[in-house]
Amino acid sequence: MVLTAVLDYVGVATFAMVSTVAARDRRLDLVSAAMLGTVAGIGGGTLRDLALDRTVFWLHDPGYLYVCVGAATLVWFVGAGPRRRQTLLFLDALGISSFAVVGALIAGEAGVSAPVAVVMGILTATCGGILRDVLAGELAVLVRRDIYISVAMLSATVFVVATELRLPPVPAAICGAAVGTVLRVLVITRRWQLPAPPRA
Amino acid sequence: MVLTAVLDYVGVATFAMVSTVAARDRRLDLVSAAMLGTVAGIGGGTLRDLALDRTVFWLHDPGYLYVCVGAATLVWFVGAGPRRRQTLLFLDALGISSFAVVGALIAGEAGVSAPVAVVMGILTATCGGILRDVLAGELAVLVRRDIYISVAMLSATVFVVATELRLPPVPAAICGAAVGTVLRVLVITRRWQLPAPPRA
Amino acid sequence: MVLTAVLDYVGVATFAMVSTVAARDRRLDLVSAAMLGTVAGIGGGTLRDLALDRTVFWLHDPGYLYVCVGAATLVWFVGAGPRRRQTLLFLDALGISSFAVVGALIAGEAGVSAPVAVVMGILTATCGGILRDVLAGELAVLVRRDIYISVAMLSATVFVVATELRLPPVPAAICGAAVGTVLRVLVITRRWQLPAPPRA
Repeated sequence: MVLTAVLDYVGVATFAMVSTVAARDRRLDLVSAAMLGTVAGIGGGTLRDLALDRTVFWLHDPGYLYVCVGAATLVWFVGAGPRRRQTLLFLDALGISSFAVVGALIAGEAGVSAPVAVVMGILTATCGGILRDVLAGELAVLVRRDIYISVAMLSATVFVVATELRLPPVPAAICGAAVGTVLRVLVITRRWQLPAPPRA
Repeated sequence: MVLTAVLDYVGVATFAMVSTVAARDRRLDLVSAAMLGTVAGIGGGTLRDLALDRTVFWLHDPGYLYVCVGAATLVWFVGAGPRRRQTLLFLDALGISSFAVVGALIAGEAGVSAPVAVVMGILTATCGGILRDVLAGELAVLVRRDIYISVAMLSATVFVVATELRLPPVPAAICGAAVGTVLRVLVITRRWQLPAPPRA
Repeated sequence: MVLTAVLDYVGVATFAMVSTVAARDRRLDLVSAAMLGTVAGIGGGTLRDLALDRTVFWLHDPGYLYVCVGAATLVWFVGAGPRRRQTLLFLDALGISSFAVVGALIAGEAGVSAPVAVVMGILTATCGGILRDVLAGELAVLVRRDIYISVAMLSATVFVVATELRLPPVPAAICGAAVGTVLRVLVITRRWQLPAPPRA
């Protein structure tokens, strides 16, 4: 599908750029920034492919590596002021949702059941960023009070349910990505948080 | 073997619950707690299967995911007072030892030599918790003064040696799990520690 | 090739010893030190093999595990004063460069393109140490101001370019390893650093 390829490249480039903004703020050198950006861009899909026992998607398609290194290098040199950060935040919302859909789609094609496809969508969308945070010695999104994993879960679930209801892949993918993007934008603009656990 | 399946599910559920007690203490939301609990429950076995080039065990059996998410959700809502924590600590001892045996058993079936089977047992038993700690930004057991990896090593070794001595798998598994559980309980109750390195 | 096998074992042993010097300084026990040393020694090659979908190299050759555990145990008991640390630092320079060449060589044999082979060389040389740092709760080389990843990149690139220019594997490997080792020694002795990003 051309659509998923486009979403995929946009997601990879966005994740690499978001990562490099953070790396630049910490004054990291270009090599570290490019490596962290690449981990952020392709880490989630790599884990998904390992878990599904597929060929890792960038192994015979170095285009993904070029996009990561190129996007990271660009951002490292030019930097990002408040407006660009704002734009990246919204592209990031689209990126998480798209990756979650792509991950669930690929998992479904590999023949796994619906719940496992949702988990693969979550892995694809969130593990690149989590891995990047861990390598950079920062607190991963898992322990920050942010609604991020839920966005991936929602996108993947909407897509999987839509295909189970016999919607064709393209509209199902658009539904999944759109619902997740809207939720993520609401989370950012309204500063939503998930509730803390009940007191014992 | 029914026995290993039971030990496996008990271990997965216990690891998810132990992880969620810690997540709850840190006031993490349900999604983060469930994801960390799932990592703790299935992370070690996943790494083992990747290293052995087997199909990842939960890929076609989402029951493991349900157990992790279910156990984490339960603990997140109801919490755990001192008595439940005590119980979980002992179940955790059984969990490490069982996972170590199951890991060594699966590795042996995959045709690796005895020392590699012991390493796979250690991986299976300890990597879920280590991964969870790393993702949660906590100090992993590797750098805490606790006897944990040695328990997995002992259980796996006892099991591997017992099968080399032609003991049938069920009694060999019981021996391995029992010896490790007893050692871990002694470690907890007597606060045993391994010695620090000699002064140079 | 006998040469790569020798370089490989020297690299694995060196990485395990360097890791154990750090573990000893932190007063970690022998089991933790041996596990971290093993991760440092074989972690990079393991990730490379997983990404290339090859059999993990130590799975049917436990010699690598023995070397890691043996080297870690030795250093844990005898310690390392200033002169031994100096020696290890230079062996480490040889280790990174050799691992980068071996990784690129193995990737090339697996049929990937030149840029992906360079990435596999970087993975092989740096991921063991990065993984060890993450597990030990220390800042990985990625966020320290050190020229380390670039050394691996240079060695792998020199090797890949040399083979593209139809140099036979042995001289190509020697060139790659030598250039990287010299760069790393210069980095250490002259305290070179990569530049920080330009001010926005």
